[in-house]
Amino acid sequence: MPSNTALKSAAEEKDTGRLEAFSDGVFAVAITLLALDLQVPKLGNNASARDLALALARQWPSYIAFITSFFTVLIMWVNHHGFFKLVHRTSARLLFANGFLLMMTTAVPFSTALVTQYLRFPAAMSACAVYGATFVLISLGFSSLLHIVVKDPATRKPDVTEETLECVRKSWRLGPPLYILATVGAFLSPYVTIGICTGLWVYWAGTSRDF
Amino acid sequence: MPSNTALKSAAEEKDTGRLEAFSDGVFAVAITLLALDLQVPKLGNNASARDLALALARQWPSYIAFITSFFTVLIMWVNHHGFFKLVHRTSARLLFANGFLLMMTTAVPFSTALVTQYLRFPAAMSACAVYGATFVLISLGFSSLLHIVVKDPATRKPDVTEETLECVRKSWRLGPPLYILATVGAFLSPYVTIGICTGLWVYWAGTSRDF
Amino acid sequence: MPSNTALKSAAEEKDTGRLEAFSDGVFAVAITLLALDLQVPKLGNNASARDLALALARQWPSYIAFITSFFTVLIMWVNHHGFFKLVHRTSARLLFANGFLLMMTTAVPFSTALVTQYLRFPAAMSACAVYGATFVLISLGFSSLLHIVVKDPATRKPDVTEETLECVRKSWRLGPPLYILATVGAFLSPYVTIGICTGLWVYWAGTSRDF
Amino acid sequence: MPSNTALKSAAEEKDTGRLEAFSDGVFAVAITLLALDLQVPKLGNNASARDLALALARQWPSYIAFITSFFTVLIMWVNHHGFFKLVHRTSARLLFANGFLLMMTTAVPFSTALVTQYLRFPAAMSACAVYGATFVLISLGFSSLLHIVVKDPATRKPDVTEETLECVRKSWRLGPPLYILATVGAFLSPYVTIGICTGLWVYWAGTSRDF
Repeated sequence: MPSNTALKSAAEEKDTGRLEAFSDGVFAVAITLLALDLQVPKLGNNASARDLALALARQWPSYIAFITSFFTVLIMWVNHHGFFKLVHRTSARLLFANGFLLMMTTAVPFSTALVTQYLRFPAAMSACAVYGATFVLISLGFSSLLHIVVKDPATRKPDVTEETLECVRKSWRLGPPLYILATVGAFLSPYVTIGICTGLWVYWAGTSRDF
Repeated sequence: MPSNTALKSAAEEKDTGRLEAFSDGVFAVAITLLALDLQVPKLGNNASARDLALALARQWPSYIAFITSFFTVLIMWVNHHGFFKLVHRTSARLLFANGFLLMMTTAVPFSTALVTQYLRFPAAMSACAVYGATFVLISLGFSSLLHIVVKDPATRKPDVTEETLECVRKSWRLGPPLYILATVGAFLSPYVTIGICTGLWVYWAGTSRDF
Repeated sequence: MPSNTALKSAAEEKDTGRLEAFSDGVFAVAITLLALDLQVPKLGNNASARDLALALARQWPSYIAFITSFFTVLIMWVNHHGFFKLVHRTSARLLFANGFLLMMTTAVPFSTALVTQYLRFPAAMSACAVYGATFVLISLGFSSLLHIVVKDPATRKPDVTEETLECVRKSWRLGPPLYILATVGAFLSPYVTIGICTGLWVYWAGTSRDF
Repeated sequence: MPSNTALKSAAEEKDTGRLEAFSDGVFAVAITLLALDLQVPKLGNNASARDLALALARQWPSYIAFITSFFTVLIMWVNHHGFFKLVHRTSARLLFANGFLLMMTTAVPFSTALVTQYLRFPAAMSACAVYGATFVLISLGFSSLLHIVVKDPATRKPDVTEETLECVRKSWRLGPPLYILATVGAFLSPYVTIGICTGLWVYWAGTSRDF
């Protein structure tokens, strides 16, 4: 029955659409929750304007962590979005890999809060290692997504060339090793972690239009 | 007036679409709020990196609860999504049953927080029983949705066969009895609850492509 | 230029669509945030399972307030949704009235938390009066939306009849007086407020398919 | 290959759509999180209804800040939405500028909470200066978006005239100088800041239908 096939194909198309919409929702909520790490300084009612200004200035680690995380999640969303343009239909595997990716994304406000809380203190090493590790897992999630689509031609759109896949792979393969470096580097200095994470989103922002 | 009928039918179609979009929004926000249960350990400013690492390790119940809840809600979303592909138009009943389902879904971060807080302590039994009971109610919500669509052919799409409905019923009927078991089993050990809940989402993840 | 007109009309159509999508997003986030009022009882680590069960049972006001607010916001979403099916294009006025409605909707978790916190205590009167007043303002927001569309035929779709508008008006006109009663009735008993609010969403749930 | 071009063009069109949907999600979550600044007064269980009413009345700064921020973010969403109607396809630059705009938008609940907390106290100057500065950065974000689209004709739709761009520029150019005034004016009185911010959203609400 051709009409049935057409219906099924349309339904499958819609499937990807709703998965993308759901993923977008999770990305949008997670990125907005990052701002909950910006906390109002608790000063007494008699605090002067200068006291508040100083207290806000002392919170600089939270601004750094907020900005780094915001743009990293934003770029992850861009990459996710670019990737799903190649996907024709979902499978249980793809759903699972995407779920893992989303789960780790919702954990970014948590690891960002860790960095915010401890960046100026001796525990910064552990906080930044957890922060880096979160992105190691996220970049492995992206690698899994790509791997599934590379291995199973039925999951990708017919017009997706080997060249396009190679281009995505090339852009993404920097993720896991560099985030591992960012995690290990936390034990040298927390700024190694933040530097590498910032470098990566700047790099992806510059190359994101390529696919 | 045929044009009026067409308009009405298009409006009805859009109805389901907007109900799905709203439900997706609620699922996406609820699943992201689960991460609020991951809390930054409150240590003094002088805590060492090792102290923070240990404090994070001691929080293992929150990671287990977070992962279990995340994938359970994700699979619920997949099932919800698969189900609404069969629905032609909404009714007051369907709206109410779906509302009940969404309400219980927004309560999952609460029952997850209960488990997170008490898993290592004597009160774990009650916490896990509430956790299990939340999913009993959610699975009954799913059963109601299916029941409404089975009883009222006007609510389902014309091409939905008895076979498809039977297939959904077969997949979902495990929910209520096993979640009841997970609730009662909490009084033996909290790990019975978590084990059954994990087993169920793994099972549904494996069979979710079937309809 | 006819093509320009067509373009403009399509753009206007999309306008309503994006306003609806934005409103849906606000409704979905607000309804999910209601669950933040469900709080994990803070007991010591040695609390028994029975202690936790009792502490959860003592929180019954939060369950009542949560359920009442959830279904009221859900029905408000349904009414909002049904209403925008009649709207052809937005105006500055409609945007403002809708904005006021959304603002009050985002305040529902706050007034719900007030009821949750004080329902068992002497301050319940004030808490319930604020709760009722929130819905008085929301129902006035709905009345304004309807008033704008009734007064300005250019804002509504060409096929919307006087009969349809009358039907919406009839369904909604119960809102302001009954919510005012619920507000004033708080000073008799908080259960008057909760009873009227519950009665109203049940009534609207039963009649929501009518337009 | 013409089919390839058509495909590419459709994909690009969808690009803008998904960027808009993601931005809408962030706006919707951020605007709803504003309500978290409305806090339940922490009174003892024996507090009378009058005590609670007085405590709620004393929170007037949070209502002012909430209303001002809500409508300002709403109008920003309207402007964002109107602007993207002119955009044909995204670029790395546009993505970055939009990301900056969204980041500052998610920070609005934080700067609103600052005002809420300190409006009645000596530190109000600093709180309101930060509040104003948030909107200075947001209005500069809008100016960047416009600048990118003005400079690069490839990013805008073919039917966008110079006149339309001029009209947007004229409407938006009040933003940066007046928000700078609102920031500096905080040192005269916090009400200068709130007055200018209110004046601006009222002005934009009145002129928003123009493009």
